[in-house]
Amino acid sequence: MASSSSQALPKLTVYRGFDWPGRYTWSPFVNKLETRLRLAGVPYVAAPGSVRQAPMGKIPYVDLGNGETMGDSTLITRRLVGDGVLPDLNAGLSPAQKAQDLALRALMEDKIYFYGVRERWRDNYVTMRSTVMAAIPYPIQLIIGLLAYNKATGALNGQGTGRLTQDQVAVFQQEAWEALNHLLSEARLNAPARSRDAPFWILGGEQPTEADATLMGFIVSTLVCTAAPEAGKVVRGFPILVDYCRRIHDRYFSDYEKWTE
Amino acid sequence: MASSSSQALPKLTVYRGFDWPGRYTWSPFVNKLETRLRLAGVPYVAAPGSVRQAPMGKIPYVDLGNGETMGDSTLITRRLVGDGVLPDLNAGLSPAQKAQDLALRALMEDKIYFYGVRERWRDNYVTMRSTVMAAIPYPIQLIIGLLAYNKATGALNGQGTGRLTQDQVAVFQQEAWEALNHLLSEARLNAPARSRDAPFWILGGEQPTEADATLMGFIVSTLVCTAAPEAGKVVRGFPILVDYCRRIHDRYFSDYEKWTE
Repeated sequence: MASSSSQALPKLTVYRGFDWPGRYTWSPFVNKLETRLRLAGVPYVAAPGSVRQAPMGKIPYVDLGNGETMGDSTLITRRLVGDGVLPDLNAGLSPAQKAQDLALRALMEDKIYFYGVRERWRDNYVTMRSTVMAAIPYPIQLIIGLLAYNKATGALNGQGTGRLTQDQVAVFQQEAWEALNHLLSEARLNAPARSRDAPFWILGGEQPTEADATLMGFIVSTLVCTAAPEAGKVVRGFPILVDYCRRIHDRYFSDYEKWTE
Repeated sequence: MASSSSQALPKLTVYRGFDWPGRYTWSPFVNKLETRLRLAGVPYVAAPGSVRQAPMGKIPYVDLGNGETMGDSTLITRRLVGDGVLPDLNAGLSPAQKAQDLALRALMEDKIYFYGVRERWRDNYVTMRSTVMAAIPYPIQLIIGLLAYNKATGALNGQGTGRLTQDQVAVFQQEAWEALNHLLSEARLNAPARSRDAPFWILGGEQPTEADATLMGFIVSTLVCTAAPEAGKVVRGFPILVDYCRRIHDRYFSDYEKWTE
């Protein structure tokens, strides 16, 4: 049952790593990519896939519809924009707004992301392992889990977040989400008059930008992930972050199960 | 010969990792910290130190003057602000400006930084090893160098930059510096009327913010580092970046040897 808009397009498959139909996954990058596609009304099929089959060894990855697979949510987005499947959300921005958008994505994807890896893999390892590796039989799960743990702690040490104390991470994490909350707060205040429940966007414009897909992805993955209770508390402590997420959910993800408030 | 402002303060030592008196080092974070101190006129002693003695296993680190050492340029800055040694450069910013400043630092410190690690350690390994490990005798340098190489490539893989192709990194690196160039271009245009050679600041205000220390650190380390020719070409391709760096150099680092144009 292809819709009229999908008839011309090859069927895109998003491999999400989690076999959770109708639910958000714990991965911010999976949620980011799904948001990016849904903002543009591009249909896709969700499938679990696996990290072992992932082209860059990470999720999400996609099958472009012709058997060609690729990974990395940013590279996938660029490719789909280049192919004319997705609109270039940032085409109408000023150079300064483009710079701000890029910097905000770095704040989330290259900084907040690692606070999440640390809390999930280091502080809540058992929850993390038993959830993301639920498909792997138990004794093997222990071994693969240990490899994943070592990989995560190695990455954290190399990237730098692993060398901080718990208190330092807490301060930095609070500061980063607070910054995003301030921007959203201004954006909501200055949003064009519309329905009270219409989504608003991080740069304050009429239309979403790339940073919005990332922000939705990061907020919602934090709200649903039970292996990151500290990050969940921080995000829930900023009601505008949750409101932003709720409005996008209601308009674009109404078929998905909502997070627990 | 303590100056009047330094008499009340314990003498701060900045361990830079490089035994290069009167010269910028190749480390963006060392240059960032030195910029941060010089912007505030806080005197310090530069010493080589070594990664092995560094509290967090990385440079720069400092001796606060009482024998207490600490690492991480951001944590050091926070501590010195808390101790009243450094002014809080961002105190007068609006919440949205603070958010923008934080995001710009993430773009440099958590994203551009790893493009640098990749080009220096992976693509120009021999230059990098023989320079940063010049103090280590040759046969041992080969072994320690290999460990550093493995550490760098492991970090790059975990952080994500190591999984990209050379072309993808080139595109992302160009995009990131272009964004900074656009912001500086607007800032220079709108800078308060002063001497043509006075420094201007990334957020466009009268005074520098935290992001300026980072930006100066990243530009100048790219300009002086012979192990990162591609990044050097990108930065030199944006004359406003170089002009920004030159003006800060002339006012705050006139005792340091300048980069090759």
